[in-house]
Amino acid sequence: MRILIHAPEAQHWQAALTRELRPTLPNIDIATTQEAGEGPADILVVWKPPVSLLACQDASLKAIFNAGAGVDALLSLPELPEVPIVRLRDAGMGRLMADYALYGILHFYRDMDRYRRQQLDTHWQAQPLADRSTWRVGIVGLGTLGQACAQRIRAQGFEVQGWSRSPKHCEGVDTHHGDAGLTTLLNTSQVIVSLLPDTPETRWLLDEQRLAQLPEGAVVINAGRGTTLDPDALLRLIKQDHLRGALLDVFPDEPLPAQHPLWQDPRVIVTPHVAAPTDVSEGARQFAADILALTRGERIRTVDPATGY
Amino acid sequence: MRILIHAPEAQHWQAALTRELRPTLPNIDIATTQEAGEGPADILVVWKPPVSLLACQDASLKAIFNAGAGVDALLSLPELPEVPIVRLRDAGMGRLMADYALYGILHFYRDMDRYRRQQLDTHWQAQPLADRSTWRVGIVGLGTLGQACAQRIRAQGFEVQGWSRSPKHCEGVDTHHGDAGLTTLLNTSQVIVSLLPDTPETRWLLDEQRLAQLPEGAVVINAGRGTTLDPDALLRLIKQDHLRGALLDVFPDEPLPAQHPLWQDPRVIVTPHVAAPTDVSEGARQFAADILALTRGERIRTVDPATGY
Ligand SMILES: NC(=O)c1ccc[n+]([C@@H]2O[C@H](COP(=O)([O-])OP(=O)(O)OC[C@H]3O[C@@H](n4cnc5c(N)ncnc54)[C@H](OP(=O)(O)O)[C@@H]3O)[C@@H](O)[C@H]2O)c1
Ligand SMILES: NC(=O)c1ccc[n+]([C@@H]2O[C@H](COP(=O)([O-])OP(=O)(O)OC[C@H]3O[C@@H](n4cnc5c(N)ncnc54)[C@H](OP(=O)(O)O)[C@@H]3O)[C@@H](O)[C@H]2O)c1
Repeated sequence: MRILIHAPEAQHWQAALTRELRPTLPNIDIATTQEAGEGPADILVVWKPPVSLLACQDASLKAIFNAGAGVDALLSLPELPEVPIVRLRDAGMGRLMADYALYGILHFYRDMDRYRRQQLDTHWQAQPLADRSTWRVGIVGLGTLGQACAQRIRAQGFEVQGWSRSPKHCEGVDTHHGDAGLTTLLNTSQVIVSLLPDTPETRWLLDEQRLAQLPEGAVVINAGRGTTLDPDALLRLIKQDHLRGALLDVFPDEPLPAQHPLWQDPRVIVTPHVAAPTDVSEGARQFAADILALTRGERIRTVDPATGY
Repeated sequence: MRILIHAPEAQHWQAALTRELRPTLPNIDIATTQEAGEGPADILVVWKPPVSLLACQDASLKAIFNAGAGVDALLSLPELPEVPIVRLRDAGMGRLMADYALYGILHFYRDMDRYRRQQLDTHWQAQPLADRSTWRVGIVGLGTLGQACAQRIRAQGFEVQGWSRSPKHCEGVDTHHGDAGLTTLLNTSQVIVSLLPDTPETRWLLDEQRLAQLPEGAVVINAGRGTTLDPDALLRLIKQDHLRGALLDVFPDEPLPAQHPLWQDPRVIVTPHVAAPTDVSEGARQFAADILALTRGERIRTVDPATGY
């Protein structure tokens, strides 16, 4: 059995997968495209692979493992073999994503945006502290990462609600789904944290009309995918003072083009897609468990081609 | 029995104390200096009172309640009657102080200082994420607020150590005390959160020599008292790139003078003494419980004149 890796930190993936799999599968061959070149494999572990690597696969290919949470880039590739796609779930990303969301929430809840502006003006003035119970947090996309964020934010004393495609139970969190559910969530959140995947259904979902449903002075955090939110509409609503500001990690085009006005607005914080980097060791443990299950002929959880995530 | 209030939000204190005490003490008289003027009382509830209010007290005065955690301003007043001094403990401040500390830790741990500078340069570049286990947090002053911070920061997955005057046990936190203990803590913390009171012993404790004991690239958060840390030494160490940056809420002179260079350094975040405002309703509940205990002749916890906190 051959595993071929094409991903950032490929050698790290190789070492970690070897460590996890060799004890049970002593003859397994785990290579990187860097050292072994492109060629057919039983399993591909990839992040944004070249089309040529996909095109040269044959009937021995059993599955493609996506070395990240979002499969949008992979699914959009031509020549994608029709095999099950497995993706990372959490793998250390939940904690990091929750850090990121929590940072953004505290930044605005504790008026750090206002104090930053005051500092530039050498202006000493305490802002009245908002009542925590009025600072409701809405998680748009209550999946693996959304739920990790919801629980961590709730543990800091904030009220949390969430929205997903299918109805969901999440301890201590008000859950919504469907079109009307999104309207309710937006109408009643002081801050939203969007953690949606990029799929045909979510593309440009948070457009001007949707964002305008947020209450005046609300804050937007997006760390899901840039294509799920219209950044120009967001910026207009900020400039009109309908929204207070934003913390953005993902953009329709990445890197965010140098001339894009988001870079310049002092109410927007731009980070370069760093909210939740993959922990390769954790990821390799997760993939190794799936690979072992496959060799035993067991079913594993794969990406649903119908919904695209 | 007469309670006289002289504090910010005096009417709020009056209403809350009335609500707490009237059911048990129907004849109690609770007034503010604003409406009733200065005069003798059984109990004073004060924040930075005028000397004249202290000077006109007589033998009926039983205790002074300090409407905040820090008693340094009160203790420094001339004409201070020799009665027990009670101060606020936590009263909603623990959660807010922990917000503040956590915000500062996440700001630097998640490289938000670097991303802010990159944004000003329209520069898109991911920073390598530091290993959480190497990002040790040192709490200098492990009292009521220090312990609240320690527990909340620990719950986010950071290793926490603390330092106090007397030896201390604090769940899951490495504790130190004494001179050597402070050196150990400073040598091994990536970030310190100072929550010391201003006392004769703590004044200018964190001077250039002490701050230089922090490892290169360390971060300083001060939300205790401005007189416990030398801001000029801090700024020198930042400019020499020994320290990475600071989040400061308290200063030797407040408001921080307009010409002070701390305002201008982009690696320093200045907030106007807002880390943990008092929650008056919570504070009144705490003071009411102490006042009822006093009327029953019970002992209550008071400020130690020997240590000054
Ligand atoms: N910025 C970063 O560094 C970073 C890092 C990792 C991941 N990400 C992004 O974060 C995304 C989420 O990751 P995850 O692991 O949490 O994914 P996940 O477990 O698949 O969760 C996706 C969530 O979105 C909901 N959703 C999907 N389509 C929807 C629709 N049409 N309407 C309403 N809700 C919909 C899903 O609803 P159901 O629960 O009903 O299925 C689910 O709750 C990834 O797709 C990736 O793009 C970003
Ligand atoms: N920025 C704000 O908005 C804000 C709000 C509230 C309070 N504060 C400040 O925060 C301070 C702390 O409040 P708190 O309620 O946590 O006070 P606390 O319970 O009295 O705690 C003070 C801590 O400092 C330690 N300490 C005092 N003198 C020391 C010395 N010489 N050497 C070593 N450690 C020493 C104490 O040690 P032991 O445990 O051994 O006694 C204790 O751990 C207040 O004094 C106030 O100035 C600021």
